[in-house]
Amino acid sequence: MPPSRQANLDHTLLALADPTRRAILQRLSRGEARVTDLAQPFAISLNSVSKHIRVLERARLVRRRRSGREHLLTFDPKPLADAAAWMESQRALWTGRLEALDALLSAEDRAAKRGPRRRGRPR
Amino acid sequence: MPPSRQANLDHTLLALADPTRRAILQRLSRGEARVTDLAQPFAISLNSVSKHIRVLERARLVRRRRSGREHLLTFDPKPLADAAAWMESQRALWTGRLEALDALLSAEDRAAKRGPRRRGRPR
Repeated sequence: MPPSRQANLDHTLLALADPTRRAILQRLSRGEARVTDLAQPFAISLNSVSKHIRVLERARLVRRRRSGREHLLTFDPKPLADAAAWMESQRALWTGRLEALDALLSAEDRAAKRGPRRRGRPR
Repeated sequence: MPPSRQANLDHTLLALADPTRRAILQRLSRGEARVTDLAQPFAISLNSVSKHIRVLERARLVRRRRSGREHLLTFDPKPLADAAAWMESQRALWTGRLEALDALLSAEDRAAKRGPRRRGRPR
């Protein structure tokens, strides 16, 4: 994986590794919102919400636009789709390797249990 | 999502959000390894590798067993499978909501463009 994609993946996974940030994305998936709208349901300070939003912006999961004095936030699903695709491909690859390894070890165990009588026999 | 599953997801995503930890898992997907085997290809200190391994153990992606004086590490794919399933379900759900919202806004735009002539007409 090229370094820029590695870094994008780092930012996306780190951004998603927090329940408040996941809840913010869930809210934004229902439509654009102001920073102050987002702070209200979480019972945390505006400053704390702003920090979470910056982590989400760095991961490009959230975009900010200005309308007069308001900052409006939208959810961009692209990095989530990229991370989900990466995770599924690694899950399939890594789990497949483990299963192949288990099968190999089981086959060796069975061969060993057949005993020394057949040891020299070609397979 | 219950708090314990939230915490598991936090640990899994955080553990995966680092290229060295992903490389360690990739190596372990090829079979059991000792901590010293893992440190070698990464050109980082044994202490630094140990810290990464502890993060992976907390996420239950890596299990440790002792064989005499050796610590042997194996990869457990279960938390990766859980996180991949969560990520895919949220991607589908959140992206679906955004698309439904876009469709709704486009329909409203078209209705508005039809002009005031039809405004009073029941829909």
